Amino acid sequence: MEQQSFSYQQLFDFSKDIFLKIGCNTEAAERAAQVLLSADLRGVDSHGIARLSGYIRLWEAGRVNAAPNMQILHETPSTAVVDGDAGLGLVVAPYAMQVAIDKAKIAGTGWVSVQNSNHFGIAGIHAMMALEHDMIGIAMTNASPLVAPTFSIERLLGTNPIAVAIPAGHETPFVADMATTTAANGKLEILQRKNQEAPTGWIQDKDGNMSTNQHEVKNGGALLPLGGDREHGSHKGYALGSIVDIFSAVLSGANYGPWVPPFVSFLPVADNLPGKGIGHFFGAMRIDAFRPAADFKQHMDQWITRFRNAKTTPGNESVLIPGDPERAMEAERRKSGIPLLAPVIADIQKLATQFDTIIKFN
Amino acid sequence: MEQQSFSYQQLFDFSKDIFLKIGCNTEAAERAAQVLLSADLRGVDSHGIARLSGYIRLWEAGRVNAAPNMQILHETPSTAVVDGDAGLGLVVAPYAMQVAIDKAKIAGTGWVSVQNSNHFGIAGIHAMMALEHDMIGIAMTNASPLVAPTFSIERLLGTNPIAVAIPAGHETPFVADMATTTAANGKLEILQRKNQEAPTGWIQDKDGNMSTNQHEVKNGGALLPLGGDREHGSHKGYALGSIVDIFSAVLSGANYGPWVPPFVSFLPVADNLPGKGIGHFFGAMRIDAFRPAADFKQHMDQWITRFRNAKTTPGNESVLIPGDPERAMEAERRKSGIPLLAPVIADIQKLATQFDTIIKFN
Repeated sequence: MEQQSFSYQQLFDFSKDIFLKIGCNTEAAERAAQVLLSADLRGVDSHGIARLSGYIRLWEAGRVNAAPNMQILHETPSTAVVDGDAGLGLVVAPYAMQVAIDKAKIAGTGWVSVQNSNHFGIAGIHAMMALEHDMIGIAMTNASPLVAPTFSIERLLGTNPIAVAIPAGHETPFVADMATTTAANGKLEILQRKNQEAPTGWIQDKDGNMSTNQHEVKNGGALLPLGGDREHGSHKGYALGSIVDIFSAVLSGANYGPWVPPFVSFLPVADNLPGKGIGHFFGAMRIDAFRPAADFKQHMDQWITRFRNAKTTPGNESVLIPGDPERAMEAERRKSGIPLLAPVIADIQKLATQFDTIIKFN
Repeated sequence: MEQQSFSYQQLFDFSKDIFLKIGCNTEAAERAAQVLLSADLRGVDSHGIARLSGYIRLWEAGRVNAAPNMQILHETPSTAVVDGDAGLGLVVAPYAMQVAIDKAKIAGTGWVSVQNSNHFGIAGIHAMMALEHDMIGIAMTNASPLVAPTFSIERLLGTNPIAVAIPAGHETPFVADMATTTAANGKLEILQRKNQEAPTGWIQDKDGNMSTNQHEVKNGGALLPLGGDREHGSHKGYALGSIVDIFSAVLSGANYGPWVPPFVSFLPVADNLPGKGIGHFFGAMRIDAFRPAADFKQHMDQWITRFRNAKTTPGNESVLIPGDPERAMEAERRKSGIPLLAPVIADIQKLATQFDTIIKFN
């Protein structure tokens, strides 16, 4: 499929301008653009600028508040509940993660559950905020229901990702960022574009039978929890996705399970919702609340080096450390630009026209 | 295979007596017996009384200290590192989990990383200690290396379980307790006893090829992370197992990765270990550090009821809530007794002879 590359700065300036045009202040617009584009840099194309128009449609539908009054509703020395005031998750999430980090500075750890938010981009970038403070960062969020629990035909969970960022010494940090499904929805979208079948264990059809039809989710089917089926541990993926849902939403007072509002603005939001908006959960643990940071980092380096140098299975060059592929992608794209597919370019050109702004081409 | 049933009380009295004979005080012996047998009650037969002789062999090898001086090495308002002094994990784990709970009472949450411990039985029972305090409980541990990371031939991780226990109102609590592998080692042992092949995605052979030979791990093969292979998300299971390893051991100063000492006493412990014993990690989060416990429980009930009543896939009666199968098993076994296989009975009879104690038969 036709594509064209843009520099990070081009896309940042454009996204920032759009966020300013809908009413974000400068700080929020820059933060939102930075978080959004971290997905493109790290190769998670489904969560980057391709979603910008989706956020704008939600703003048009009155479901996103561009100037939210975010606040702490309740707190203890190591916890807080944050009300995102229907703000962009791209802005609410860094605010809440900062609360967790500030709590950890004093109490050793900080844990923040968030209600009344919207989609927050990629989880990893929020968890990584902890790294420069010599803290372990954790980020998770619930999301629109696309996933069927083990034995269920109904879609009751989102792809509910978990991200954990752990600092190291001279080695690169350990950054895991994973949907709790066998494959993230973005992976399925790639197969749809390429017109390729999905592997078994990724999706089921509307009657609950395993399917390899890459379009099945649009036909009433569902994504499957990590594991795929009961024999391969899908009850574990289901439990993990449920834990994310409960920590993010039942703890905070957001919507959970099948009541999570859809990301797409053209789908109606259900009546009688049990909570407000979507929910996130953040954690920060100060390393030296456990042991001296220098000792920890030395052992993390030993851990990482040992795993990296393990003997590999046939056809694979080395064992990867979580975060390696995304780091390599970011280095490449900062140098050579971010490739966008023709439909995504058309989409942002429409936004440019609508908001009378300019996307500068090479 | 021949089996015979024993009452919980019979097995408790016997196990307690054995722990007393090796030098545990009464409180420790009762605690160890209770934790050990919770596995048999909940149907995790691989982690219950079948392992009692294994613990005793470790004590004979000087690797288990029956009268440990457990202590807090370092702490902040919401964290602590505990030195288990080479005690039985069955005793060290409840001590450390209690520290987490006590911290949560004051700081909102408590997080405890443990060094210098041994295997702690099933993770779920420790996480469940939080429930009666209206807290969410978390427990994890690293374990002997049997698992190959994605693309690795070498076994660098244990089955490294994660347990999360979440209180509800009139509904039963949510209790997830899962190895971060496709299947726990105990599930493989069942197939070995039945002489049945393993499903694909559970194990690989010594050269890193997928295998269905249920004896492969003994031949230099490895268990596989949850997901099985890269296409089915094994990099996520590998990341989860790694997080457990790092939280349990790199944070605490225990051994990690391939250096975790083997559970079986006849295998040598490596030289130049990077830490002490094996490691655990515990967390406790007070519900009302986020929102009133009554509100939370009402929404947990709504969550559980909705999931339980979802439309099911063909051939399945209902969607299960994590903890349901174990609860049903415990109710049955408290009533009808705990069935033990002939080799396990022979094993505990040998212990009875060795320690001049009595296992009472029906």
